[in-house]
Amino acid sequence: MSQLYASLFYQAEITQIFSDEGMVSYMLQTEAALAQAQAKLGVIPAVAAEHIIAVAQRPVIEVIDFAALANAAGLAGNIAIPLVKQFTAAVKKVDEDASRYVHWGATSQDIIDTACILQCRDALNIIEKQLLEAIQATQLLTEQYRDQVMIGRTWLQQGLPLTFGYKTARWLSSLQRDLERIQAVKAFALTAQLGGAVGTLASLLDQGSVVVEAFAKELELNVPDCTWHGERDRIVEIAHVLATLTGNLGKMARDWSLMMQTEIAEVFEPSGVGRGGSSTMPHKRNPVAAASILAAANRVPALMSSMYQSLVQEHERSLGAWHAEWLALPEIFQLCSGSLARAIEVFNGLEVQVENMHRNLECTQGLIMAEALMMALAPKLGRLNAHHLVEAACKQAVAEQRHLLDVAQQNADITAIFDVQQLQGIFNPQHYLGNTQQQIDAVLQRVQGKTPSCP
Amino acid sequence: MSQLYASLFYQAEITQIFSDEGMVSYMLQTEAALAQAQAKLGVIPAVAAEHIIAVAQRPVIEVIDFAALANAAGLAGNIAIPLVKQFTAAVKKVDEDASRYVHWGATSQDIIDTACILQCRDALNIIEKQLLEAIQATQLLTEQYRDQVMIGRTWLQQGLPLTFGYKTARWLSSLQRDLERIQAVKAFALTAQLGGAVGTLASLLDQGSVVVEAFAKELELNVPDCTWHGERDRIVEIAHVLATLTGNLGKMARDWSLMMQTEIAEVFEPSGVGRGGSSTMPHKRNPVAAASILAAANRVPALMSSMYQSLVQEHERSLGAWHAEWLALPEIFQLCSGSLARAIEVFNGLEVQVENMHRNLECTQGLIMAEALMMALAPKLGRLNAHHLVEAACKQAVAEQRHLLDVAQQNADITAIFDVQQLQGIFNPQHYLGNTQQQIDAVLQRVQGKTPSCP
Amino acid sequence: MSQLYASLFYQAEITQIFSDEGMVSYMLQTEAALAQAQAKLGVIPAVAAEHIIAVAQRPVIEVIDFAALANAAGLAGNIAIPLVKQFTAAVKKVDEDASRYVHWGATSQDIIDTACILQCRDALNIIEKQLLEAIQATQLLTEQYRDQVMIGRTWLQQGLPLTFGYKTARWLSSLQRDLERIQAVKAFALTAQLGGAVGTLASLLDQGSVVVEAFAKELELNVPDCTWHGERDRIVEIAHVLATLTGNLGKMARDWSLMMQTEIAEVFEPSGVGRGGSSTMPHKRNPVAAASILAAANRVPALMSSMYQSLVQEHERSLGAWHAEWLALPEIFQLCSGSLARAIEVFNGLEVQVENMHRNLECTQGLIMAEALMMALAPKLGRLNAHHLVEAACKQAVAEQRHLLDVAQQNADITAIFDVQQLQGIFNPQHYLGNTQQQIDAVLQRVQGKTPSCP
Amino acid sequence: MSQLYASLFYQAEITQIFSDEGMVSYMLQTEAALAQAQAKLGVIPAVAAEHIIAVAQRPVIEVIDFAALANAAGLAGNIAIPLVKQFTAAVKKVDEDASRYVHWGATSQDIIDTACILQCRDALNIIEKQLLEAIQATQLLTEQYRDQVMIGRTWLQQGLPLTFGYKTARWLSSLQRDLERIQAVKAFALTAQLGGAVGTLASLLDQGSVVVEAFAKELELNVPDCTWHGERDRIVEIAHVLATLTGNLGKMARDWSLMMQTEIAEVFEPSGVGRGGSSTMPHKRNPVAAASILAAANRVPALMSSMYQSLVQEHERSLGAWHAEWLALPEIFQLCSGSLARAIEVFNGLEVQVENMHRNLECTQGLIMAEALMMALAPKLGRLNAHHLVEAACKQAVAEQRHLLDVAQQNADITAIFDVQQLQGIFNPQHYLGNTQQQIDAVLQRVQGKTPSCP
Repeated sequence: MSQLYASLFYQAEITQIFSDEGMVSYMLQTEAALAQAQAKLGVIPAVAAEHIIAVAQRPVIEVIDFAALANAAGLAGNIAIPLVKQFTAAVKKVDEDASRYVHWGATSQDIIDTACILQCRDALNIIEKQLLEAIQATQLLTEQYRDQVMIGRTWLQQGLPLTFGYKTARWLSSLQRDLERIQAVKAFALTAQLGGAVGTLASLLDQGSVVVEAFAKELELNVPDCTWHGERDRIVEIAHVLATLTGNLGKMARDWSLMMQTEIAEVFEPSGVGRGGSSTMPHKRNPVAAASILAAANRVPALMSSMYQSLVQEHERSLGAWHAEWLALPEIFQLCSGSLARAIEVFNGLEVQVENMHRNLECTQGLIMAEALMMALAPKLGRLNAHHLVEAACKQAVAEQRHLLDVAQQNADITAIFDVQQLQGIFNPQHYLGNTQQQIDAVLQRVQGKTPSCP
Repeated sequence: MSQLYASLFYQAEITQIFSDEGMVSYMLQTEAALAQAQAKLGVIPAVAAEHIIAVAQRPVIEVIDFAALANAAGLAGNIAIPLVKQFTAAVKKVDEDASRYVHWGATSQDIIDTACILQCRDALNIIEKQLLEAIQATQLLTEQYRDQVMIGRTWLQQGLPLTFGYKTARWLSSLQRDLERIQAVKAFALTAQLGGAVGTLASLLDQGSVVVEAFAKELELNVPDCTWHGERDRIVEIAHVLATLTGNLGKMARDWSLMMQTEIAEVFEPSGVGRGGSSTMPHKRNPVAAASILAAANRVPALMSSMYQSLVQEHERSLGAWHAEWLALPEIFQLCSGSLARAIEVFNGLEVQVENMHRNLECTQGLIMAEALMMALAPKLGRLNAHHLVEAACKQAVAEQRHLLDVAQQNADITAIFDVQQLQGIFNPQHYLGNTQQQIDAVLQRVQGKTPSCP
Repeated sequence: MSQLYASLFYQAEITQIFSDEGMVSYMLQTEAALAQAQAKLGVIPAVAAEHIIAVAQRPVIEVIDFAALANAAGLAGNIAIPLVKQFTAAVKKVDEDASRYVHWGATSQDIIDTACILQCRDALNIIEKQLLEAIQATQLLTEQYRDQVMIGRTWLQQGLPLTFGYKTARWLSSLQRDLERIQAVKAFALTAQLGGAVGTLASLLDQGSVVVEAFAKELELNVPDCTWHGERDRIVEIAHVLATLTGNLGKMARDWSLMMQTEIAEVFEPSGVGRGGSSTMPHKRNPVAAASILAAANRVPALMSSMYQSLVQEHERSLGAWHAEWLALPEIFQLCSGSLARAIEVFNGLEVQVENMHRNLECTQGLIMAEALMMALAPKLGRLNAHHLVEAACKQAVAEQRHLLDVAQQNADITAIFDVQQLQGIFNPQHYLGNTQQQIDAVLQRVQGKTPSCP
Repeated sequence: MSQLYASLFYQAEITQIFSDEGMVSYMLQTEAALAQAQAKLGVIPAVAAEHIIAVAQRPVIEVIDFAALANAAGLAGNIAIPLVKQFTAAVKKVDEDASRYVHWGATSQDIIDTACILQCRDALNIIEKQLLEAIQATQLLTEQYRDQVMIGRTWLQQGLPLTFGYKTARWLSSLQRDLERIQAVKAFALTAQLGGAVGTLASLLDQGSVVVEAFAKELELNVPDCTWHGERDRIVEIAHVLATLTGNLGKMARDWSLMMQTEIAEVFEPSGVGRGGSSTMPHKRNPVAAASILAAANRVPALMSSMYQSLVQEHERSLGAWHAEWLALPEIFQLCSGSLARAIEVFNGLEVQVENMHRNLECTQGLIMAEALMMALAPKLGRLNAHHLVEAACKQAVAEQRHLLDVAQQNADITAIFDVQQLQGIFNPQHYLGNTQQQIDAVLQRVQGKTPSCP
């Protein structure tokens, strides 16, 4: 992807992790861990491991010729084969004997997969940190606006009132579930890969299993029950968690971009120099962050489709399906983290126009309070009579283009029950919010850890 | 989908759950639970609830006019609106007063979503049961063939030997992870939905939260912290687990269909009347079950893409995205369960042609054992010398179209170290299997619960 | 898919074509054409063909046991194998000798693929007819509202004025391109399939090519250069055209559902009994048709992904990929035609609220006309001075919450150039519409065939 | 995407076109054409246009600060806004007055979309050239191997014989259709974009349409009937053609990778230093090109799903959906062209192992010729008797593990009709190839233009 778009869609630390240098660094870290583990078990000489590790820890840019690597990858079919060749040559310069123990017993996919898992771990940690920030910011919005009444909307139509803090509490609730998903996948899916050519580690003779265990521990990864070269569900699981988070953020971006419409104008993305403005159209406030997040939420589902397709692999190591994973996974990480970065900025700097929220509550001239009026009348008149009475009043209000409260105030059947002040109270959206406060409390308690994690 | 394809792609019980009658039954069950919960709390009269429940428990086909319902759905935008109308009319015939309390405080989406969750629960239970069968069958294959040597393949090329039971152990390992995912998602995602028009349950006044709790308990579902009409990650989570399972099965189907190739002929799907045979091509054994599973594994990723897209919903209840879910989720359940049904049949009846496994081990004339020979020579000659020696022998074997063992037996450098019997031992694939047995044991112990669930 | 959803998402004639009975009818029609073609060439006896054709023309429901067929399909891997068996038995009852010539030289995929092409032809013709209706309806809207000014919106923000007829002209332009695509694909992709087991028609000995030609002509289909069992690009091409049309309709549905928002209220889907209304929320006008079309436009892209994946087939006839096509293609037809049906209803009955269009033009208090003012001043003051002057006036209007026209009328630098009447003219959105009329004309001329088809 | 993968998946010229520098160059070329067109019409001063064009033609790297551009894009929401700012500043350094006429009347999307169309044109031309190379290479294979008999396979099972040239003729036929699609889309979809803020070109007053026409002609692009900022079907059409081509190549890669299986070994990708080999597994010939193409064929369908989703845009210019296009389209071009590059290498260097093709014809011991035997006997014995006779012989051959020819030669009923020599002729696969030669001729004639383009 064009670097020109990076600040629109990506996140800098994640970009670094999945950069060419980043990827190669993780691969060399994997080779070092393999040597370390094997040296500890006496599978290779300790001195060889020392040399291997020393070279692996040098700046990659000194050790590896990236242009040559890129060129060779196309012929070899993956980058591990030429990388190991270059790395071995670099070790050989230091110590010829040590170079014979580079990549001992491993296959190229072992290194690529384990490095990928290490990238995932670091990237998941960054995303978890971002997510905590996003949670904190939406929690603040929820607390601040828990009483700020506005209209609720369904099918893009005005429905009944709710509060802006209730709206953000529902966002918050989904972010909290995303957090729990990330924590669960970190425990489940960060598993080392070491199987050799067909998964059996045959060239390690009877030491395969102890080497796998030592290798995994060296990298603080889960020890696999068996090689998983061709069984990719853990990788898909990681991608799924990110895709769900991206989709949840897409829902929020859709909400706030709709609320930013000129005619609605209830919230705005934070303003700033160069941000979404226009000199000849001074009223425009483009939802730039929302556009970026919505693009990610359009794109990640498609990438997930590629990930699920890639589960269908051939035999012990596949062709094509594994390759497709390389392209999709880093991008899912990027788009997810980039979306989070943009969302955090918006949550932290959101401009809330409470007067417009109030104005929009009035745009149906009281019709949104028809149900409230009916519920108030029902105990006095019976539900059915109340329904007929309010229905007639609504029709009258619409026909005469009057406010429903005005019609109600001049309806003898209604004024026989409620005086003007009572009617004004009934028409106050603040009084018809159901259990919004209890829902907000339940979400906040979950986030604050006062209730156990989502069941 | 054509019913003509049902026996190819679907599973009968799941079809029943997601049939029109099934769906309506779950919706009426939901209405009954709502009435029950509200009656217990005194929100509606107990006698009204009794009537509502009695009608809801009658055979749906008697209560509901399906043709009229189908017709009205197109105008209303969902089936709950006309269904509640019909159901209310049916209750009214029994008791006019009770009919006023039907669907009390709920919105159409509450009924559709909760009914969907109930469908998911029953369908997940069926799939869990199927999965346990599949696990048992692959466990048996693993135990039976743990020593049955065959060639391992990577990039569709012969690599090194492994055992057929090792191959099935890796299948088994992924099925075990699928089982743990299903159990986790059942605990997490089966959550009731009750929010009224915009999620606030305003028409229940101050009783919203207690009604939600009682309603959820009535149905033995999780109590939501807040309404989730527009936050669909739980539904996506369920679909993801099924998609991963379907993909894992796709991998197995790919494996066995490749092994069924006429030229390879190592395993066969169970034979039977009308099953994949051909009278004029008597040698053909079409992998019919594999075709069906591979079609599902092609299709479900696409449906998942639709599910993730559907996360982007507008405001409190969306238009379009929610509807798209209705079409994708039942089909994912169907294709997953159908694939499992077909896979179980194959696992239980798989014909394993051990002689062909042996034959195929020979098709490179010993070259697959070159590494084993090198590893055996290395301790005597040093790794580098061993490498050069074996490389030369391989080249000679290829050039002269001779078996590598034959070349080795006539190579003085080699026969100086190993006698004929030793060389035959080295060339025995059974002796070059690395840690396959330990991996198999680790997988079996996990399945048998001897080690804790996947981390 | 649930029949309960059919009136929401599907179209009745298309449903019939892709129904079980429909599919089997097309398959028997294919068998009849094969017999007819072969009889004409003397490949099979004329009398045999007569019997075969007679049975094929009987009502399918009499000839075929659908339950048995459904059951056998799961074992055989497709429905053609058991269907041919049943059909042969039916012919045998009439004439034993004729029954030997049923399906002569063909393979099951020949019948399924050719029947599929026949279904596509009939379904494309229906969709073409619908599309012509949709074009006519949007043409009428364009002509009727070509001068009806309203605000144009970008990034969900108000931009500059345009006319509603201009908006529909752009819709119309895309529908016209869809029409040309449908006509092109009908010419290109409706090609017969007849290849026998591996595409060579070996059992027809030296008569393969003449039989293919006669068979294709019998059905008025293109004669293929070669068998295309494994090369599915024609099928994908058909699906692509439908997917593009569905996406274009999705764009329109998005537009009108946004314009239906309570706060905007510029257009409404036609109202009617049971259509999107709510008794307790009398102000609601749910965009039911838009929801249905947006669901289709969410779903069809995913199905297309499955279609493109299915291009990757194995050898002469594949397993799995071909099967996946059967599931996706009929649904794409259904969703496309269903969307068209809903869109036509909306175009024909659209309620346009011109007063709200005018109201919304005022909601920025004249800021949307800032550019028009600047363009009017530029020739007098120079563009740069005009820019500074208008920018300052805008800032003042925003700061003082006044209408920009009001600010302009009290600005000496501006009133030195324009009097009040001139300024009102400048602020009239009708006077700042650029080349909308020319664009509308260009589109209408294209639709009316006055310009050649889209280049 | 990692540059390390570029040689595996991409093509260098296409990479250049869609590089950051490439994209910016096309955008400046667009600005230059706009100025040129407007100067010719007297909309802007000729001298201003000269300055603008001169700056636009300087090396982009001198004119544009890419780091600043990348940074600003994130705030502005696209790169055109900051690019125009930088470009204007660069023109201003040369001539202040000219700088006022930069980007006159245009909106950022006009520049991005038109530049995108220019990129598409150049990239389509490269792909067309590649495709002609691929067609030539497969044509040569077809001519060379049109008589080289091998087994045809369906459902991964051996079916009947065909020739390798017939197989490549079917590949060729799909490539020819791809070529015609590319030529058609070039005529149809390469249309200029110029609409200003909401598509009306209001700031050009009454000169909008003439400017659009002159601008399009300047760039040799189609003149649009109307602005298409929000109607993206042309872009999707381009992507579709590439996706179909990629899928067709995926089918070929699947075929040859299956034929490269160690046990089958009928063809091999060209060998070379560093290409798919392994020193310890000397028998391995990894299908590296196939892996790359199959990865593309897995990935492009998912990207297409994103493209179709992006058709659903809001109003005159959308947020998010347009952005998603930017990410998907260049990648589809890259993967398509990269796949073509790899396929061309394979077609040009394919190693065909005719002896293995012959060997594999024997692996069913004559059963693949059962149908041929039956067809030979039918005229003598009647079809039914022939069928029974051959069926019995097949059963005997399987039971006794003998060659069917051997069984036939000892069957009195058969030898009564055919002598040994005749039977050997019948069992010669060369004699049972149906209309393969006619099909090959039809395809070759189409490619050579002797028959009109595909109907």
